[in-house]
Amino acid sequence: MSDWYLHGERVDSMPVDDRGAQYGDGLFETVAIRAGQPRFWDLHLERLTTGCERLGICKPEKPALREDLDGALAASAIDTEWATAKIVVSSGTGPRGYQRPEAALPTVRIGLFDGRRLATEAYRDGVQALVCQTRVALQPLLAGIKSLNRLEQVLARAEWDDAQIAEGLMLDTEGRLICGTMSNVFIVRNNVIATPAITRCGVSGVMRRHVLAQLAREGIPCDVRDIRAAELDTLDEVFLSNSQFGVVPLRQLAARKLDVGSVSRRVMGLVAASGVPECAT
Amino acid sequence: MSDWYLHGERVDSMPVDDRGAQYGDGLFETVAIRAGQPRFWDLHLERLTTGCERLGICKPEKPALREDLDGALAASAIDTEWATAKIVVSSGTGPRGYQRPEAALPTVRIGLFDGRRLATEAYRDGVQALVCQTRVALQPLLAGIKSLNRLEQVLARAEWDDAQIAEGLMLDTEGRLICGTMSNVFIVRNNVIATPAITRCGVSGVMRRHVLAQLAREGIPCDVRDIRAAELDTLDEVFLSNSQFGVVPLRQLAARKLDVGSVSRRVMGLVAASGVPECAT
Repeated sequence: MSDWYLHGERVDSMPVDDRGAQYGDGLFETVAIRAGQPRFWDLHLERLTTGCERLGICKPEKPALREDLDGALAASAIDTEWATAKIVVSSGTGPRGYQRPEAALPTVRIGLFDGRRLATEAYRDGVQALVCQTRVALQPLLAGIKSLNRLEQVLARAEWDDAQIAEGLMLDTEGRLICGTMSNVFIVRNNVIATPAITRCGVSGVMRRHVLAQLAREGIPCDVRDIRAAELDTLDEVFLSNSQFGVVPLRQLAARKLDVGSVSRRVMGLVAASGVPECAT
Repeated sequence: MSDWYLHGERVDSMPVDDRGAQYGDGLFETVAIRAGQPRFWDLHLERLTTGCERLGICKPEKPALREDLDGALAASAIDTEWATAKIVVSSGTGPRGYQRPEAALPTVRIGLFDGRRLATEAYRDGVQALVCQTRVALQPLLAGIKSLNRLEQVLARAEWDDAQIAEGLMLDTEGRLICGTMSNVFIVRNNVIATPAITRCGVSGVMRRHVLAQLAREGIPCDVRDIRAAELDTLDEVFLSNSQFGVVPLRQLAARKLDVGSVSRRVMGLVAASGVPECAT
């Protein structure tokens, strides 16, 4: 079940001339709601604000945004103990044409959804992933932010419908590992953790940032760097991060079996202890 | 003034969970309406159909689409002697997540707008353009089609607000000339016409196709090839094509003055005589 709210009012519809719907001219955040509260709200706000600055979209006021979210959570019949809020900010409504109207006011709509949970086995035994054929284009202007231009992810996600496959990893058009369709990726080789740099393309995930912060706090090194596809053949462990499920290890990547090894377990333990209990095993 | 129609019904709103508005998961066409009829309807339909096939979106039925358009034109208070129809096809509505729902039905909405006209002087004396800083990313999966992922064009168009500048030319991230924000581009050097290949990125415009067809019919060669940015410093003439204004020459590109030369004039004459009378000079 789902509920949508536009500036705090429950709605089924949105303005037909919204620039998000015309050009993907906007951004979104997918926030985990736990015990009625948004998790990592400040990190989500920070990415949203950065995205607005980068795209030149007038930033929604932070208190007003929180008020909208709280109002939606209070009004909704969704079980907010464990839910997902999708916050979509577009550059506003406008006539035809790429040029934004002067003094365009951003449109904020919030969708509330029943939360999904990964099975305990997923965290314990790992999940399966494949490597998508769909590549991510190099566009530094959009790298890191979570814009509404997401056709690459849609096309990648359409590559499989086997429910056993939890995620597809994506390479950029020059063959670097970037991310999953809906997650960030960490690799482990010889006990060293690395995750792709998100400078040319890809989304800088909130859970990725949280994982990096936990690693830094524990003094565990993590290389944020370019990772060539060929490294996928020599790695020991892989784990994925996402704001909804936290951290989950891979047990298989394409045809290759992987260990759910001690490094992944340690990271999951740290993340579980720091506000994401669902990834404790 | 503008009017929007959803499956033939006049609307102010659209479903809040449309995937076009969530992910830019869709396509659009901007069709010139002249004397109540869509111009180059078959070319628009062909690009839209190709786009649906490429993106895996269920194709709207051609007769139903025309019926929707005709219904909108009949119902609207817009002066359909000279108007613009924007046809937006999204993959349909859906819950959260990149995966399209099974049996998703595409949503078709049509916006009708008062037509804009370029001044006679624009065709006669040429217009000014600049070269945008915003680059187009290389993404062959989306090249040629007109998807709803248009943030690059929005960012490029936001680079100027001088009404004297009619268009911004865009290079790809590797420095090739690709297109204008809302037009295709043709260059002339030593009386030879060339236009960028649209294989890695860019939109294959309906008017571009019409121009190429007219040139072929007249036996006038046109190289469809990669054009490096450096060629912009050595060209003699430039003209732009767009479904609404037809063909218009440049008189200035950034700081460089250009001739509105005989080749551009000849092409404009051909295009004017073949169904686009507004670009006759």
